[in-house]
Amino acid sequence: MKFEDRFKKHFSYIQQGLLSSVSPDLPGSLAEPIAYFLQMPSKKIRPLLALSACECVGGKLSDSLPAATAVELFHDFTLIHDDIMDQDELRRGYQTLHIKYDDSTAILVGDAMIGMAYQQLIQSPPATLTEVTRIFTDALVKVCEGQALDKEFEKRASVSVDEYLDMINKKTAWLIKIACSMGSISGGASPEQVSLLALFGECLGLGFQIKDDLLDFVADESMLGKQVGSDFRMDKKTYVTMKYRETISGNPELASKYPLNIPEFDNFQDFQKALYDLKIVEATEAVIEEYTRRSLEALAQIAPLNNDNPLYFITQFLHERQY
Amino acid sequence: MKFEDRFKKHFSYIQQGLLSSVSPDLPGSLAEPIAYFLQMPSKKIRPLLALSACECVGGKLSDSLPAATAVELFHDFTLIHDDIMDQDELRRGYQTLHIKYDDSTAILVGDAMIGMAYQQLIQSPPATLTEVTRIFTDALVKVCEGQALDKEFEKRASVSVDEYLDMINKKTAWLIKIACSMGSISGGASPEQVSLLALFGECLGLGFQIKDDLLDFVADESMLGKQVGSDFRMDKKTYVTMKYRETISGNPELASKYPLNIPEFDNFQDFQKALYDLKIVEATEAVIEEYTRRSLEALAQIAPLNNDNPLYFITQFLHERQY
Repeated sequence: MKFEDRFKKHFSYIQQGLLSSVSPDLPGSLAEPIAYFLQMPSKKIRPLLALSACECVGGKLSDSLPAATAVELFHDFTLIHDDIMDQDELRRGYQTLHIKYDDSTAILVGDAMIGMAYQQLIQSPPATLTEVTRIFTDALVKVCEGQALDKEFEKRASVSVDEYLDMINKKTAWLIKIACSMGSISGGASPEQVSLLALFGECLGLGFQIKDDLLDFVADESMLGKQVGSDFRMDKKTYVTMKYRETISGNPELASKYPLNIPEFDNFQDFQKALYDLKIVEATEAVIEEYTRRSLEALAQIAPLNNDNPLYFITQFLHERQY
Repeated sequence: MKFEDRFKKHFSYIQQGLLSSVSPDLPGSLAEPIAYFLQMPSKKIRPLLALSACECVGGKLSDSLPAATAVELFHDFTLIHDDIMDQDELRRGYQTLHIKYDDSTAILVGDAMIGMAYQQLIQSPPATLTEVTRIFTDALVKVCEGQALDKEFEKRASVSVDEYLDMINKKTAWLIKIACSMGSISGGASPEQVSLLALFGECLGLGFQIKDDLLDFVADESMLGKQVGSDFRMDKKTYVTMKYRETISGNPELASKYPLNIPEFDNFQDFQKALYDLKIVEATEAVIEEYTRRSLEALAQIAPLNNDNPLYFITQFLHERQY
């Protein structure tokens, strides 16, 4: 069954939530760029996880819609502001907001989206409001910490794999984790269920980011829809490159054969070959497997691991994707 | 009695609230610029209003400290992001964050401060939490709307006085209003008291901004601590300049004597003279008086208008300031 068909109802809910988040009072200079951003194609994984986590604990889908919408707007705000900081020109195949408009507009739209996200969130079922607001708020600070670390790492020569994992835990996995925990709380989950689904989301998020990192080095270009090797060319710190450095620097024999610094490779193909020869692709795949295993281990304690379980379906989809 | 002495206890509370808002977990690239910003001198009018509104309704000062701290962090976030958008280089006599660090840091610090503000806010007394969170959240969107209008107005040739008032209501007065309403709610105010204090804050905020606008044209430079006329030189849309345009454009006789567009004046002194001759200074002062009168009218229904009433003391202080 195709992903889009499996979650048709969910996607229509999410679309409805996002549209209702845009106040008709907004001045044109906010309303227009917000509409532009919200119409970009997006897999909407985070709100889907929130709705699915609610379903998994037997909750009513509509009870988790406020949290689901909030988490997507939160994600969008981080993309818009990160794109300014990273000077990225394309997002989801469209011009980024600061390119299409200007930095000021992109800053302000991001800020407004945080407010819009909270406006949605506080429509959560009253009994759950305090808890989801606390979780969402702590995540807002945590994700900023993750982005700060990411920017700090850009300026450093070396970053350990553990430091890298801590950074992506905050920058990427945290939001995926709270999508699951907030969704389940909205659906009336027990504290044990919430903890298990938070763990599920955290492991899913870490695996998701590391898979993203890996695909940039090994994907089939026609599947990925863009050139591989962009992280190589920009000398970005990713799981793969940090693992490469750690492998080389811990082994004098390898250090005599391979450069420690990735820009010293003549071309991408040589680096790609090194990744296979040094079994770094293999090691990275194993780490992704392990995170997937852990996420499913947590999920199995909530609901059977079959395609009726929406979170299982999503996990498989993310794990198997080649783009 | 000096302002600082009158509110010694309040200021120490606020300082304590702000310091406790900075998590020890923050990476250095966030912690350092946040510490830099928080040490800048500031009158802390908004948190002071929140604490005072709580006192005025017989509440415990400590109950309103979360809302007071949140409102100051909210204000700081807007200053940091607005300074990027306006390319301002100085704030409170110090280099702005995007100048001392860079745009990315300033964007991220502002974002993190929104999270920190909510982290404080949700420590409000449980019975009041839902209401203050709703008010705070709506204000976040509203203040962004105000900033968006302000940027839109920069690109327009003319803006009516009413449009200008709507903009400063959102951009400036709204936060002052919610400082008062959230402070009073935290102190256990009745809905009637909350409405009156919100009205008090709104009128106070509008008068405050228009006074700010006026001082840039008529203040004593030695009191103001900077050159007057900066709004004239930057052709900024303020209450004074919009009132000038409205006066000229509505009167063909005046239009033959005075330029409609302010940059056509040869120098600031000529424009200043026109403001006095056309009684625009007088009219602006009357508007400020009227807002002050309205704010005190609302306040009088809460507590007697004497110096024991902290909100009365603050109103007088703001009304009489020459800087």
